[in-house]
Amino acid sequence: MNFTAIGSGQSHEGFCLIKSVEKKMTAKGVPYLDLILADNDGEISAKLWDYKESPTATFEKFDFVKVRGSYVPFNDTIQFRVERIRKVLPEDGANIEDYVPSACLSGEIMLAEVEAVTESFQDEELKLLVTKVIDEYRERLLYWPAAKNLHHAVRSGLLMHTLTILRLAKNVCAIYRFINYDLLCAGAILHDIAKIEEMDVASTGIASEYTVKGNLLGHLVMGAMAVDRIGRANGISEETLMLVEHMLISHHGTPEFGAAKLPMFIEAEVLSELDLMDARIYEMAHAVNAVEEGEFTPRQWALENRNLYNHGRSGSDEVTLI
Amino acid sequence: MNFTAIGSGQSHEGFCLIKSVEKKMTAKGVPYLDLILADNDGEISAKLWDYKESPTATFEKFDFVKVRGSYVPFNDTIQFRVERIRKVLPEDGANIEDYVPSACLSGEIMLAEVEAVTESFQDEELKLLVTKVIDEYRERLLYWPAAKNLHHAVRSGLLMHTLTILRLAKNVCAIYRFINYDLLCAGAILHDIAKIEEMDVASTGIASEYTVKGNLLGHLVMGAMAVDRIGRANGISEETLMLVEHMLISHHGTPEFGAAKLPMFIEAEVLSELDLMDARIYEMAHAVNAVEEGEFTPRQWALENRNLYNHGRSGSDEVTLI
Amino acid sequence: MNFTAIGSGQSHEGFCLIKSVEKKMTAKGVPYLDLILADNDGEISAKLWDYKESPTATFEKFDFVKVRGSYVPFNDTIQFRVERIRKVLPEDGANIEDYVPSACLSGEIMLAEVEAVTESFQDEELKLLVTKVIDEYRERLLYWPAAKNLHHAVRSGLLMHTLTILRLAKNVCAIYRFINYDLLCAGAILHDIAKIEEMDVASTGIASEYTVKGNLLGHLVMGAMAVDRIGRANGISEETLMLVEHMLISHHGTPEFGAAKLPMFIEAEVLSELDLMDARIYEMAHAVNAVEEGEFTPRQWALENRNLYNHGRSGSDEVTLI
Amino acid sequence: MNFTAIGSGQSHEGFCLIKSVEKKMTAKGVPYLDLILADNDGEISAKLWDYKESPTATFEKFDFVKVRGSYVPFNDTIQFRVERIRKVLPEDGANIEDYVPSACLSGEIMLAEVEAVTESFQDEELKLLVTKVIDEYRERLLYWPAAKNLHHAVRSGLLMHTLTILRLAKNVCAIYRFINYDLLCAGAILHDIAKIEEMDVASTGIASEYTVKGNLLGHLVMGAMAVDRIGRANGISEETLMLVEHMLISHHGTPEFGAAKLPMFIEAEVLSELDLMDARIYEMAHAVNAVEEGEFTPRQWALENRNLYNHGRSGSDEVTLI
Amino acid sequence: MNFTAIGSGQSHEGFCLIKSVEKKMTAKGVPYLDLILADNDGEISAKLWDYKESPTATFEKFDFVKVRGSYVPFNDTIQFRVERIRKVLPEDGANIEDYVPSACLSGEIMLAEVEAVTESFQDEELKLLVTKVIDEYRERLLYWPAAKNLHHAVRSGLLMHTLTILRLAKNVCAIYRFINYDLLCAGAILHDIAKIEEMDVASTGIASEYTVKGNLLGHLVMGAMAVDRIGRANGISEETLMLVEHMLISHHGTPEFGAAKLPMFIEAEVLSELDLMDARIYEMAHAVNAVEEGEFTPRQWALENRNLYNHGRSGSDEVTLI
Amino acid sequence: MNFTAIGSGQSHEGFCLIKSVEKKMTAKGVPYLDLILADNDGEISAKLWDYKESPTATFEKFDFVKVRGSYVPFNDTIQFRVERIRKVLPEDGANIEDYVPSACLSGEIMLAEVEAVTESFQDEELKLLVTKVIDEYRERLLYWPAAKNLHHAVRSGLLMHTLTILRLAKNVCAIYRFINYDLLCAGAILHDIAKIEEMDVASTGIASEYTVKGNLLGHLVMGAMAVDRIGRANGISEETLMLVEHMLISHHGTPEFGAAKLPMFIEAEVLSELDLMDARIYEMAHAVNAVEEGEFTPRQWALENRNLYNHGRSGSDEVTLI
Repeated sequence: MNFTAIGSGQSHEGFCLIKSVEKKMTAKGVPYLDLILADNDGEISAKLWDYKESPTATFEKFDFVKVRGSYVPFNDTIQFRVERIRKVLPEDGANIEDYVPSACLSGEIMLAEVEAVTESFQDEELKLLVTKVIDEYRERLLYWPAAKNLHHAVRSGLLMHTLTILRLAKNVCAIYRFINYDLLCAGAILHDIAKIEEMDVASTGIASEYTVKGNLLGHLVMGAMAVDRIGRANGISEETLMLVEHMLISHHGTPEFGAAKLPMFIEAEVLSELDLMDARIYEMAHAVNAVEEGEFTPRQWALENRNLYNHGRSGSDEVTLI
Repeated sequence: MNFTAIGSGQSHEGFCLIKSVEKKMTAKGVPYLDLILADNDGEISAKLWDYKESPTATFEKFDFVKVRGSYVPFNDTIQFRVERIRKVLPEDGANIEDYVPSACLSGEIMLAEVEAVTESFQDEELKLLVTKVIDEYRERLLYWPAAKNLHHAVRSGLLMHTLTILRLAKNVCAIYRFINYDLLCAGAILHDIAKIEEMDVASTGIASEYTVKGNLLGHLVMGAMAVDRIGRANGISEETLMLVEHMLISHHGTPEFGAAKLPMFIEAEVLSELDLMDARIYEMAHAVNAVEEGEFTPRQWALENRNLYNHGRSGSDEVTLI
Repeated sequence: MNFTAIGSGQSHEGFCLIKSVEKKMTAKGVPYLDLILADNDGEISAKLWDYKESPTATFEKFDFVKVRGSYVPFNDTIQFRVERIRKVLPEDGANIEDYVPSACLSGEIMLAEVEAVTESFQDEELKLLVTKVIDEYRERLLYWPAAKNLHHAVRSGLLMHTLTILRLAKNVCAIYRFINYDLLCAGAILHDIAKIEEMDVASTGIASEYTVKGNLLGHLVMGAMAVDRIGRANGISEETLMLVEHMLISHHGTPEFGAAKLPMFIEAEVLSELDLMDARIYEMAHAVNAVEEGEFTPRQWALENRNLYNHGRSGSDEVTLI
Repeated sequence: MNFTAIGSGQSHEGFCLIKSVEKKMTAKGVPYLDLILADNDGEISAKLWDYKESPTATFEKFDFVKVRGSYVPFNDTIQFRVERIRKVLPEDGANIEDYVPSACLSGEIMLAEVEAVTESFQDEELKLLVTKVIDEYRERLLYWPAAKNLHHAVRSGLLMHTLTILRLAKNVCAIYRFINYDLLCAGAILHDIAKIEEMDVASTGIASEYTVKGNLLGHLVMGAMAVDRIGRANGISEETLMLVEHMLISHHGTPEFGAAKLPMFIEAEVLSELDLMDARIYEMAHAVNAVEEGEFTPRQWALENRNLYNHGRSGSDEVTLI
Repeated sequence: MNFTAIGSGQSHEGFCLIKSVEKKMTAKGVPYLDLILADNDGEISAKLWDYKESPTATFEKFDFVKVRGSYVPFNDTIQFRVERIRKVLPEDGANIEDYVPSACLSGEIMLAEVEAVTESFQDEELKLLVTKVIDEYRERLLYWPAAKNLHHAVRSGLLMHTLTILRLAKNVCAIYRFINYDLLCAGAILHDIAKIEEMDVASTGIASEYTVKGNLLGHLVMGAMAVDRIGRANGISEETLMLVEHMLISHHGTPEFGAAKLPMFIEAEVLSELDLMDARIYEMAHAVNAVEEGEFTPRQWALENRNLYNHGRSGSDEVTLI
Repeated sequence: MNFTAIGSGQSHEGFCLIKSVEKKMTAKGVPYLDLILADNDGEISAKLWDYKESPTATFEKFDFVKVRGSYVPFNDTIQFRVERIRKVLPEDGANIEDYVPSACLSGEIMLAEVEAVTESFQDEELKLLVTKVIDEYRERLLYWPAAKNLHHAVRSGLLMHTLTILRLAKNVCAIYRFINYDLLCAGAILHDIAKIEEMDVASTGIASEYTVKGNLLGHLVMGAMAVDRIGRANGISEETLMLVEHMLISHHGTPEFGAAKLPMFIEAEVLSELDLMDARIYEMAHAVNAVEEGEFTPRQWALENRNLYNHGRSGSDEVTLI
């Protein structure tokens, strides 16, 4: 299904995402649904006339649906008239990753790499703690995005960001041999875990809003609280919990970026720097890709108002953001 | 006992505090204790010669002791030669408040006022939560100081500071009637409760050091964690815990002063302002009292380098800092 | 008169405020007035056709007028066609407070409370000084707003703000007995008095603009100058004037908010903190009231870009802002 | 008199300054004065034994005195034993400028140049205002320093600084012809006039302390108040006073340096920049002169911690700081 | 030619500037040029129908052209229909300064004054260095603007700004005789020379864009590099180059404004202050001129958000900005 | 030679470093040298009596010497009386790395790794540029330290720091495949090259002072100048030079840390972050190593005043700082 390529009058059937949905009333008082449908190729305005609400016909923002209908001209543009619509079923064999912006590796593959690292820990307490926390959040962790509309705001973006930090962290440990591998990796894996409670995310992996709790407490403090709760329930020592909790509440580096404490040991400091580096590289690559070679981007507010230069000397790969 | 007023050669018996203690050796290899003893009137250097260590004769910084001895000249000053020394026993009837700088109300009286306010709450969840948290910390709360060496660094200073904030909060509610009394008062009572885990304090109520956990996590986050743990154990709702926890992690007002979040509702904002106001008034009164009327203090580092003026127009009472 | 509730074709007579007025010309060259009329319920576009200018028929922004006319449809909305219009006369018995946003207490009642406090001063110099300054500004003080479009920008808002600060100040003195009651209260009463010369305000109590002098000197310095001039004329001592003037020029707390000096004694510090607290509470309550329970406000520029949370747990009263 | 060059045992008579004086008692209870005497060449510790206080024999810090006495060895150094001491009389013909660090032009010459500029004003109001203000402060203006221990802390330093700013201002007006000459020059002449009330200065022109009023109000606000008072008494228009007062309260440029308002018209802005430039040039020249050619100064706290370089390429004159 | 004053239907021939040019296609596929033409009096939309591209008929933004055509009505306005258009030839005798905003002195006159100062240097190295650098950039220096759209963004604005700084610098040397005249003047002349490589400028003297190199390196570092290259090629000593290069890389005063080093000797400091002063005076005069006497400007973003006051007391000349 | 372990009266011969040397005169007018000698084990005060200056007997700070002498008691300590002293000769076979704090890899080994990376570049221009710059500085690069007294202030510390950044950079390229390997590595290799001209360093690899040029221009701008000069001489393209020069002048990340420009493409940003990370890790490890496990360091001024925690959980190796 490619909404933008198809002309008026044609009929079409396929899978897509509901980007917005509103129940309205015609002048004659007949209810209809006013929708915006989207897939990876673009989006289109759509109408479902003579809508009758029912448990199986209740649709929400970010639902993954199968639709059938036809294209009709509307003012200067083309609209999609929905004839049939229902939520996607497992037996449809449709893959949500093909319809929403997603990390380039699947959540399962990324989580496996994370768990392999955890398995290699020599510190049994840290291995148990990380395992138990992942277990509690596993289902959502597989598809959660890392943000609403900044870096890694894609399906499975949280794992993508986590895994990248973890890979960087492993390399840093290989160069600075006195850094504690288990501690730094545990921090890398857990540092953003509470983003799962900080944002409301549809099952499609798209974040809609920060939760009230996310706004009032933030994922740094919420993460430390989760570690404290799960850690106590599993008999982790006070000292180990304290170190991990410190890494979580300090990982934004400075108070102005939300850290409750400045990082006070090396692993905490390195974690905060890698976190910042990954966010910056992601945002810079994103901005630079949007302009031509030899051009500057507009001022980037989140990057100290810099204009970034596309020098056109790419690396061995295209910019894939993983 | 008044160390500074008494002349050489006199003998003396009384109660005092050990401000420092060190085991040393004479040139002939005989062990002795080198002490500094203090009470509210001042302090004096002291020696316990021919010291034999034993379980009942082991002394630590901040121990409350009964001593007997005599004054002997030493260089240009006078020293106290200890003849007998032991820890104070309950049957001695000596009151620690008379020997260390203390709040002007006893811990018991102040805690009773705090609990009366709690009892008056209409919100049963907040009443239960505050009661349970106080119960857990009650014993130490009675004598804990509020700081190591800034405002309210006196025995029971934490309760003194808490009670003052609470009284201010009640008045604010009387003037702005739309502020939620129970919520603001709960925040006022609990806001610094984790200072009990942030500092190591002798039983005499004098803080020696920040704990490792205090340094790495801070009393704001530790307070929120304690509220979370105790609240969950007592069935307090998520919403109520979230509001109280937000008040705790935001009560330093701005990130540069350690707040993990800016205050995001009125009660949290008012709490942070009253906390700042009480600290400032305490520190300003302290500094101004140390200079003559008509004079300025030296620059006060903790007060934006201000020179404060002693205008000599005191209020209805002497400066008592409660 | 309730402009928004009344349908087309109806005739109406009542009192209202002129929010804007412009003299225009029809295509045929006949002059008419294009008006916006307002009362507490809303506002409406209005036309006075065949307008003949005369001394008794000259209207300005913020005039309080009596109108008669009828509602006529205009495009998609309804317009008011004015048949008769004149300024309100005393004999009309109309109360301006009913037609513009006003403090919930009348200026007279609030001023009486302020003067009762002044009367209670033990310091005769301060009593005389405050009395003389109030006397000079009394008439305008009764209805002046406290700002153009931030906190307390309502009729008699200046007195409302002054009285609230004064009440808070009295309570603070009751808790910290060493604070000088007369000095703090004198500062509270006089701190914003020069706002009367800083803004141009219509007799209805609505501020239109800052004056040139207000922009170039500001109410802090202008207030100190007024105190100096009136104080010298009434024989107040240099020392007393100096203390009060310092409180006025320092009451914004920090240079970035316009203070010419940091507060250098406790009463000056407390005044600056209460002033900030009242402004913040007013603005936060205002912002929070505008969103539903359980929602966050948009970012508040004047409150460090915070999103504020409406937790829906109101106090004993509705939010009335006095 | 050159205290440092003269050996033990010699007798000496001459003029000097009292840098400090303290009345003490010998072991036998005989009063004596413990002094430090200074002239431009250095300073020496001195004693006046068997001191009998009397109205003509009362000495204070910074008094200009005539002494007679002899040098006596004292520990590793030499002390001056005072035989006779009295304050300098006019008939002594001693010139105070020869004994304290002074501006290189006399106060009278500098003031004459300032008054010539004033006389040239085309704006009669500004001419009258400046004349009246100078008249009120004339006597002290002739010898007042500009600061306690920063730039121009020398006898007549205030006039020296004022005159330099005035000369710079005249040149700026010659280059930017649209700048109002009278207004900028009036501001230049009056901008620091209230330093005369901000500091206590001995008749020798050395500042000892800031006054209480100087600390609490500052010379910016005090200057505006003086202009307001003198201007009103001489019938100067509100508009003219307002412009001059604005220049005075804004002449430190930014709030962090004490300006109550940012400069809001060109003459105010230029004045603030010239004031800063003169202070910086003075301080930099002072610092650079203290190190050898080819060397860097230590970090200069008042100059953003810069190390300044002495490149040894002096101008047409030695560094004279006027 | 005065586009705004001339009515429809009239024919016209004259000189003007191309402010924008775009090649378009009519509905029938015939190419035409869509232009905006401008001179000092205003600008007008223009069309060249039936456009045939050729080497002599290729037009770019900012070309100086001779046009003939007529005014035709278009919607509510008037458009210019171009009949003939070609680039201006030397034999036309048209003077570009009459058609673009220009400095009030010609480039040649200003450069002559700059070179006369250079000629007067006593330091032969500095004389040679400045001469050689000017020689390299002479042609472009004559007409280059100083900025894209801030201060001195006019034809020959760079020389205008340079000359003003130089005049101020000379005066400063006359007042502070210890400042090195040659060094300060050399810095003044060269400080912005690399703006010639920082911006792309049409031959008409209007800047279009920053160059890539200008964005990535900036005119401070580029200026130091040019001085280094030209200086080495002409045998200037290391010491002299180092001093001049330091003045160039530090002339923005503080890091936040782009200085690579804080000024570290007096001439560097004075240069940075004069540079700032000229920019500010230019921008303030520009802003104040745009409002009526007695009015304030809107907030000026580049001037710390100040509202500037037009007090209407102009100097001896109109505001001419030179 | 181990100065601290050896007792009085013993004779000793060995190699060491001169930490300070001063020529003095005995009371009888005989010249002698007052020295402090040091090796990796400690330092000792030494005297060379009856010193006769000669070309072969002229000693300077940081000279590497061979000494013979004996230990003599002096006051409470032991002094070394030098009998023979001369500079170390190649035939002595003494290795300077054994006597001064040095990087744990030799300069030659580290440089070989750097050159192997250069050799692998696919971009021939960058390969040539880096090679030529290294050639010019090779000799000093082998032993230069990276700083006077902060991170990597050891012999060959500059190469150690360079190599670590290079290793980190390679890993980053492996994770983010779109980053240009050659460009980032070239920047990593060259970023601090001008430290060789910024500091005066003895042949032993110990920095004594910043050069005048280093203070006035800094290694960022000096590095860009060197690249420009060497690049032009070797025909490197403008575009390539511009990119490398930008990386050099921006590698301190923000203006407050000395960057002349913010990094404006990804490789420049990553370089600045890795540079900061290496400096921080080095300084934190250094500080943490100086306290016991379980303790906090004193406040670290260069690390935002943090107290760092030694958690005692070291990595796979001891802290070796390479």
